[in-house]
Formats: sequence, structure tokens, C-alpha cells
Amino acid sequence: MRATAATAPQQATTAEREDALSTLSALVAEDLAACNRVIMTRMQSPVALIPQLAAHLIAAGGKRLRPMLTLAAARLCGYPDVPGGQRHVILAACVEFIHTATLLHDDVVDASTLRRGQATANALFGNEASVLVGDFLFARAFQLMVEDGTLEVMAILSAASATIAEGEVLQLMTQNDTATTEAQYLEVIEGKTAALFAAAARLGAIVADRPAADKDALETYGRALGTAFQLVDDALDYAAEQARLGKTVGDDFREGKITLPVLLAFARGDDAERSFWRRTLEDGRQDPGDLAEAQALLARHGALDETIDRARAYGDQALAALAGFPDGPIRRSLADIVAFCIARAR
Amino acid sequence: MRATAATAPQQATTAEREDALSTLSALVAEDLAACNRVIMTRMQSPVALIPQLAAHLIAAGGKRLRPMLTLAAARLCGYPDVPGGQRHVILAACVEFIHTATLLHDDVVDASTLRRGQATANALFGNEASVLVGDFLFARAFQLMVEDGTLEVMAILSAASATIAEGEVLQLMTQNDTATTEAQYLEVIEGKTAALFAAAARLGAIVADRPAADKDALETYGRALGTAFQLVDDALDYAAEQARLGKTVGDDFREGKITLPVLLAFARGDDAERSFWRRTLEDGRQDPGDLAEAQALLARHGALDETIDRARAYGDQALAALAGFPDGPIRRSLADIVAFCIARAR
Repeated sequence: MRATAATAPQQATTAEREDALSTLSALVAEDLAACNRVIMTRMQSPVALIPQLAAHLIAAGGKRLRPMLTLAAARLCGYPDVPGGQRHVILAACVEFIHTATLLHDDVVDASTLRRGQATANALFGNEASVLVGDFLFARAFQLMVEDGTLEVMAILSAASATIAEGEVLQLMTQNDTATTEAQYLEVIEGKTAALFAAAARLGAIVADRPAADKDALETYGRALGTAFQLVDDALDYAAEQARLGKTVGDDFREGKITLPVLLAFARGDDAERSFWRRTLEDGRQDPGDLAEAQALLARHGALDETIDRARAYGDQALAALAGFPDGPIRRSLADIVAFCIARAR
Repeated sequence: MRATAATAPQQATTAEREDALSTLSALVAEDLAACNRVIMTRMQSPVALIPQLAAHLIAAGGKRLRPMLTLAAARLCGYPDVPGGQRHVILAACVEFIHTATLLHDDVVDASTLRRGQATANALFGNEASVLVGDFLFARAFQLMVEDGTLEVMAILSAASATIAEGEVLQLMTQNDTATTEAQYLEVIEGKTAALFAAAARLGAIVADRPAADKDALETYGRALGTAFQLVDDALDYAAEQARLGKTVGDDFREGKITLPVLLAFARGDDAERSFWRRTLEDGRQDPGDLAEAQALLARHGALDETIDRARAYGDQALAALAGFPDGPIRRSLADIVAFCIARAR
């Protein structure tokens, strides 16, 4: 049923891969339920709009992938070694609050109206409320960290939060700019996605008080997984049916976001193709049929396949980072998650 | 030149009061310069738009009132007792970062185009960048707290940050609602303004490691000062010429914000007057001349005078909270700041 670390991305079947998330959920089921209770309790406020808006996003059933990384990494490291340890649960809730805050602000920045197939909070409650409730959740995350009570955790999550914001700002700066480099693109996705994955996984080794090498290994796992995850996301935006992701295909195209598929096709295109990309992404002049044309150009240059290949290479890095940890259901499940993230592209 | 704590609000002349801010600046000049260096250094980022946008607001010459409270409170408490102590400087920078982050988000929420007489960051750089750079500054504030390294500080500033967000959301909920109560209004200004003043002042006693009574007294001073400050601000929005505040008169009216002057005039008005407030603030149907009519109604019911009287009562609370601290230039200057905040209304 489970692939081993060495073979997961290549040989697991689609069904097995899609099962990876539920397998991981089942392995950390008790912790995840406790984490959800913390989330529901701590998103409360006497100001009624806050829990209403937060619940819309938090209760709407995201994958809880990031908090599960914290929970699973902690278990992988043997935490809690005595019954009753709840640090991983508190910190997993922190991670989800930070993630939710960034989603609320992202949707405002992107003027998105759909997320996971549902109306976004900003579409329902307005941009103003989304900005402010995001701020509240961010502050609440830091209050939870204070309850956890270690500077090491706060250093990691405050640095990750700053890196996320930097990645998002860089994304804004590179938007509509076909001169964006691959290095800049990687910096954007390192910030907007990989930094929180990396922090979430590292927290597991921190609560277990493991040596620096283990903390670094889990951080590497998280960062590589997050990078792979975002690469696949960026490929899917040109590839998948809307229902599959719960999001509209072509969002990035319409917003003029410069992602790796576009960078590859642009670099390999002729003058006419580059004019097409400049018109549609830089000048924002898009006609019906342009998305289909963009998809055709990406296919001609193998840009989506190469993006997935790159994701697979990051996936291999993530798997390698797990090698030093004892084999067992948790490690195998963390390996399967890598395959799951990449298999979304099939 | 300086008024004593007991007589400041009543007897200092306008010139003396307007001098209070520069007197305080002079007393903490060295610390303030150090704080400004921390601010300029720590708002840097490899992502060029971040320091550009932050500099627009931070370097634009706000009063630095909040960080000065931290610096002055620390000095009042005898910190640093040995040369070289810089905790108050770092934390004052933190306070200014949190304040700046909230200003950036406020201007997005209010769709403001002018602040301190200059174009707002959102007007110049776009709402998207303002949201994200605000997030960056907030995260950076927490990184600075980690460097300071005490949980007590982090507990206070993370709680203040959550309270600020709650106040802002409550303001959004009460906007356009003439059924808002005075208690709700006070909760809004406690959150959006007084909470950070209170935290900023308390931090001074914390770095000096003073007993809880002193921490509480400085927190009370800050909270009462912040409340007085906001009450005066809300009166000024209907009273002052644009140049004096650097902001457009009538902002609150146009945005349908329900402030104390309006609540008082609404409560005391007849049916026709209430219809006027409902049309202009609830329904948002405003004609030329309506602001002048609003000002006339406020004058008829003494609403601005009463708002200032309330501010003066909070000012007295602030002064009383200083009573236990040793008399001297710093305490007198903190008392003068109370008079300064209230004197803005003259």
C-alpha cells in the first residue's frame, strides 16, 4: 500500500498517491483533532465577524497539510516521549493561523473570487474585513507561540512570516514582467510557499528537542516539498480542469503572474510567441482564445512537463532528507506526501 | 515652561502645549536617534519595494509618539541603569513597526488617499503592496521582539496586536450603523488606538524590571492618553482645517464612521436630525453641504465640546497614573504630552 522513500514518486499508482493524504491524516488523527479544537477555540473573539470570517476559510476544509507536517514531524522525532505533550498541537494551530492569514491577504491582493471551489472571504465579506481578520489571525498565532514559550519557535515563525511577505511582494514586483528570471521565480515560491512548509516541518524536531542535524533535515524536507508543491500548482494552473483543484484554470495567466511554465516557453519561443506573451501578460490585453493559445505554446515547448520534472527533482531532495530518520509508518507517510504533491499533476 | 502634572490640561498655554512634543523629543533625543537607526536598518529587504514603500510612511515624519512613550517610560523607570542598555530602543522600533503596519492596512481599508497631507502608500504603490508590506513590518516587529528575547514583551505586543485588529474589525462592523452604542465606540478606540499606547508605555517599566504596580500605572497612563488622543482626533475630523492635521476634514463623515460626536448629536437630535444622520451615514447618500449641516448639528448639541471634555477626563486619568513616579523632566514631559494631545482641539 505504501511506497518506500526511494520509489514513491515513480511507482506508486494514482490511487495510492491520492490516498497519501488520508493515510497521514489517519496516522496523526488524534493530534489533528486536538489541533482543530485549538483552531476553533482560538479563532474566537467577542467581535462576531472575526470567527464568522475565519470559519469560512478554516472550516471550509483545507487539506491542513502544513499543520499535519508539524504533527507528523514531531511524531517522527518521538514527541511526545511522555504522554500529554501538546506543544506540537499548539504549534500546528499556529502554522495554520499564519497560513490562513496569508490566504486571506492573498485573495485580496489577487482580487480572487474563488478558492477551493467556494466564494473567497473577500468576495463574501469584503476586502476590508479580509485584511483585518488576517491581521487578527496573525497576531493570534503569535499569542499561541507565546503560550508555547520558546524563543527558538518564535524566531523561526517570525522569520518565516517575514519571508512569506517578501516572497509575496517580489511576486507583485515580477507580475506582468516577462524579463523575470528563474532565480527570481524561485525566490518568490521559496517565500510564498516553501518557507512555511520548511518552518512547519522543523517545528516537529524542535518540540522533540532533537539535534540541529535533525532540525535541518526536516526543514530541508519541508522546503523541498513546498517548492515541489508550488511548481506543480503553477503547472496545474494551465493544465487541470477547474473542479479538480477547486480553482479556475488560467488564474495566473489572467493575473499576469510569471511562473516557471511561462518562463520556459518564453525563453524557447520565437519572436511572434514572445510578442504573444508580452501582449497577454505584460500589457494585460487578453482576447478569448488566448488561454488556449498559451496552453498550446506551453505544450509545444514541453514547459509543463519540464516544470513537473523540476518538481520531481525537489521531491527527490525531500525524500533524501528523510533518510536519516527511522523507517516506519510516519516516515513512509511523509514520503508518500511527496508523491501525492507531484501526482496532482497527472 | 512646563506645566506640572496637576495643572497641565487647564493652564498651559497653546504654545507651551505644542512645545510638549519637541520637549519630549529633546529629552529622549539620543534614544530616538538610535531608534530611528534601528527602524531604517530593519525595514531593509532585498525586495526593493519593501524599503521604498516603508520609507514613504516611516521617513515621512510621523510624530513618533508611540515609540517615544516607550523610550520616555523606560527613562522614567531608570532604565538603563548601566550604560549601554538598548532594550527600550529595540522595543520602541517594534512599536513603530506595528503602528506603521496598521496604518498601511487602515489606509487600504478606508481607501484613504491622504495621510499627514501626503499621498498615502496605497494611493502611490497600490493596495496590494500596502497589504503585503504591512505584513512584512508586522513580521519584522516580531523578529525584533525575538532579539529582545523575553516572553513578557512578546505576550504584551502580540495581545496588543490582536486587540488592534479586533478594534478595527469592530469599527468596520459599526460603520454606517447609527445604532452603535457608546460602549461599542469605546471598544473600537480602545482597540484601534489605546491598546498600542498602553503597551508602548508598559514596555518602559518592563525593560526596567519594575514591580507590577509600576507596569500597571504606565499601562494606565498609555491607555488613557491613547483614548484621549483618539477622542480628540474624532472631534477634529469635524472641526479643524485640513492643513492643521494634514488630513481632509470630514473623512469619518464620508466613510460613515460612527464616532462619539455623531453618537451624541444623534442621541440628542429630533426626528428630522436622525433622518439626516441615517441618510448620510447609514445609506451613504451625501449631498454637497451635508458636511456643513453635520457640523452645524454637532455645534447645536455641543457634541464636539463634550467629546473634548471626555478626552480631558481621560487626560486626567493619565496624569493621575504618573503620580507615583519621581518628579523630574521626564515625568513633567509625559504630563505635557497629555496636554498636547488635548490642545490639538483648540
